[in-house]
Amino acid sequence: MINQHYLGMLSNKSVIRELSEYATARGKEIGYENVFDYSLGNPSVPAPDSFREACVRYLQEEDPVRLHGYAPTTGLPSVKEKVAASLNRRFGMQYGPHHIFPTAGAAGSLAHALRAVTQPGDEVIVFAPFFPEYYPYINETGARIKIVEPETEHFQINFEDLEEKLTPSVAAVLINSPNNPSGAIYTEETLTRLAEVLKRKSREFGHNVFLISDEPYREIVFDGKQTPYTARYYDHTLTCYSFSKSLSVPGERIGYVAVNPACEEADNIVAMCGQISRGIGHNCPSSLITLAMGDTVDDTSDLSVYETNMNLLYDALTDLGFTVTRPGGTFYIMPKALEEDAVAFCKKALKYDLILVPTDSFHAPGFFRMAYCIDTEKVERSIPALRRFVEETYGIRR
Amino acid sequence: MINQHYLGMLSNKSVIRELSEYATARGKEIGYENVFDYSLGNPSVPAPDSFREACVRYLQEEDPVRLHGYAPTTGLPSVKEKVAASLNRRFGMQYGPHHIFPTAGAAGSLAHALRAVTQPGDEVIVFAPFFPEYYPYINETGARIKIVEPETEHFQINFEDLEEKLTPSVAAVLINSPNNPSGAIYTEETLTRLAEVLKRKSREFGHNVFLISDEPYREIVFDGKQTPYTARYYDHTLTCYSFSKSLSVPGERIGYVAVNPACEEADNIVAMCGQISRGIGHNCPSSLITLAMGDTVDDTSDLSVYETNMNLLYDALTDLGFTVTRPGGTFYIMPKALEEDAVAFCKKALKYDLILVPTDSFHAPGFFRMAYCIDTEKVERSIPALRRFVEETYGIRR
Repeated sequence: MINQHYLGMLSNKSVIRELSEYATARGKEIGYENVFDYSLGNPSVPAPDSFREACVRYLQEEDPVRLHGYAPTTGLPSVKEKVAASLNRRFGMQYGPHHIFPTAGAAGSLAHALRAVTQPGDEVIVFAPFFPEYYPYINETGARIKIVEPETEHFQINFEDLEEKLTPSVAAVLINSPNNPSGAIYTEETLTRLAEVLKRKSREFGHNVFLISDEPYREIVFDGKQTPYTARYYDHTLTCYSFSKSLSVPGERIGYVAVNPACEEADNIVAMCGQISRGIGHNCPSSLITLAMGDTVDDTSDLSVYETNMNLLYDALTDLGFTVTRPGGTFYIMPKALEEDAVAFCKKALKYDLILVPTDSFHAPGFFRMAYCIDTEKVERSIPALRRFVEETYGIRR
Repeated sequence: MINQHYLGMLSNKSVIRELSEYATARGKEIGYENVFDYSLGNPSVPAPDSFREACVRYLQEEDPVRLHGYAPTTGLPSVKEKVAASLNRRFGMQYGPHHIFPTAGAAGSLAHALRAVTQPGDEVIVFAPFFPEYYPYINETGARIKIVEPETEHFQINFEDLEEKLTPSVAAVLINSPNNPSGAIYTEETLTRLAEVLKRKSREFGHNVFLISDEPYREIVFDGKQTPYTARYYDHTLTCYSFSKSLSVPGERIGYVAVNPACEEADNIVAMCGQISRGIGHNCPSSLITLAMGDTVDDTSDLSVYETNMNLLYDALTDLGFTVTRPGGTFYIMPKALEEDAVAFCKKALKYDLILVPTDSFHAPGFFRMAYCIDTEKVERSIPALRRFVEETYGIRR
C-alpha cells in the first residue's frame, strides 16, 4: 500500500511555490520581464569562471575511472583538506579533514547534522522567522520542531522566549544567520549571549545542547562586513554550509557539515554522518562537483548585485513609509505589511504584477518577503509599481 | 546529546570494507598490482567519451545560471522525457516523464521507492543472497527487512519459502536481477511465477504488494542476451536504476525511480518522492550530471571486459573443482567455498594475496564472492595463485 503520510503531504502546497507558479503563468501572458517576481530565492548571477574551468579541467585531464569513481563514505580526502584549511585560515578554526563531511547542498547537510545530535522524540528549537522547509527537515528525522517567537525589531533572538522554551527535551538549537527571510545577521553580542544560555542550560540538564548553524548566506554580507563565525562562540556547534549561493550552483547540490573540533564526540560525528547516509540514500555529492568545489572553495560569484538591489529596495520601501529592518546580508528583505493580514496584502499586490511572499509560513505573520535575486533593471522598474500599489490601495502618498 | 544509534553503528564494520582496507594496506607492502583484489564492486572501465563530451558541452555552451540552477523538486523535465522515451523504446513500456524521478544513484532511488510504498512497521521481503546494504536501506526507513532463504542451485527464487514469508504485513518485495553477489539473472519463468504469487497474495490481503526492482546491473549481461524487464511482468513495480555501472560513473550519483504507469497511484508516486526528498535531504542529483545523463541515456561504457573476466574465472574455478553457477551478468561470481566456513576459507586465501569475500553478510554462508571488475591481465595472473591456494590448502590437484 502506498504511504499515506507522503500522499497526504501532496495537498499541502507551499505558498512560495504557488506564487512562483502564478508568476510563471502570468509571465506567459504579459511577458516574464513585466512580472516583478520577488518570490524565489534563486541566485541570479553566474557561477565564477573558475568553477567552470575546474570542471572542464577535471573532465579533460583526469583519468575517468578515478574521476567518476566512488568517493569514500565520508567524502574525498583531498577536498575535505581544502575546506578545512579555508575555514581555519578565514575564521581561526582548527578543523582537520576528519571534521568535514561533504554533502549534497544544505538540505543534505542539515539532514545529517540533525540526525547526528538528536534522538527520535527530542525537540529542536528554531527561531522565527525561519525557512519553512525546516518543518520537514526536522520533523521527518523523528525529532520535533519547537519555535521561539520572533524579535521583530532587529530580527535578533527573543531571549525571553528562548529561556522558556529551552527545556531538557531540547537536543539542539538551529540558527540561520544571515537569515532567510529577514536578511538579518546575528551580532557578536547575540551569539555570545546565545552561547552563554546554551552553556548554562547544558550544565543544568547534564547534557550538551548542540548548536546547528545553517549558513548558506554567509558570503552575502553588505557594507564590507563579515558574518561572525558561529562555531567560534560555542564548542558544540555543527556548521552546515552550501555553495548554492556563494558559487551560484544550487542545482549542483554541494555543501558540507563542519564539526567544531571542540565539540562532544568531535572525532566521531563525521563517521556517524557516513552511517546516517546509508539510511537516507545520500552516499556523497557528485565527485566531479566535489572536486571542482575543492578548487574554488575561496571563490564566489560577483555577489555585488544583491547589495545594489537591497539598497534600491530599502530606500524605496522606507520612502514609501514601510517599517523595515535594513538587511545585513542575503538577498531577502522583510518589511511589515501595510495591513495586519499580510496574505491579503500580497494578494492585492498581484494586481500590480508584484509577487511578494507573506511570511506567515515563516512563522511571522504581518510581514512579507522580497527575494531580490533578480536583475537590478527589474528592481528599478518595480519601484513605480510598488508606489502605485501603495498609493492606490492604501491611499498613502509621499 | 549525540545519537546513540548511529554512534553504535560505527562498531559494526563491513566485512567487504575491512577486506578492501587490508588489500590496500597489503598493496603498499608488495605493490597493489600483486594483490588479487576481488573485494570491491567498483567499475574498472572508463565512462564513454560521450559522457565527458556532454558535460564539457553543457559547461561551455549553456548559460551558467540556467545550467547550475535549481531543478524542479521532481527533476529536470527534459531529462525525464529522455529516460521515459528510452525505456519505452527498449522495453515496450508506456512511461511518461511524470513517471520518472531522477535520483542520486541507486541508494537515492531505493531510499525513495521504499518510503513511497511502505508505512513504518511494514515488512519488506528480500531474497538471499542480497547486497548487505539492504539492511540499512530498509530498516532505517522504519520498515523491517524479512529474508527469504536462498535457492543455491541456480540462484533463482525459493518460492516455497516466499509463500511462507509473504504475509499481510509485507508491503513490498525487493529483487535485484542481475544479482549482486551471485551474478544470476531472474528468468522469464521466475518473474512470471513471482508476479503470479504477488497478484494472488495482493487479492488475498486486500492490498497491493509492491515490487521494487533494483537493477543497476541491467546492462551487464553475457552471451548477447538481455535482462527481462521486470516491470513488464507485474503492474505495481517501481524500477530503481543507477548509471553507476552502465556509464561507469558511480561517484557522480545518478539514477532514477521509474513508476510503472499501471501501478497503484502511478500518477502520484513521483510527486510523493518529491515530498520524501524534503525529509531525507535529497533535492535532486547534480544538474550538470543529470543533463549529461539525459544525453547518454542509451550509451554504455565498453562492458565487454566483465564477460572476458567472467569466462576466465568460471573456467578456472570449474577446472579447480569448485561448485559454481555461471553468472548471466554483473561483475560478480559466487562459488561454494571448499570448506563449510567460508570466512575461514577466505582468511586462508589471504596468504596467496587473494582477496575473496565470504557471503555470510549476504545471508548465504558457505559461499564467497569475487568482484571481477579488474584488469583481465590481473585475472589471468590470479589463476595460478588460486590453483596454489587450493592445492596447498585443500590438497586438491586436477
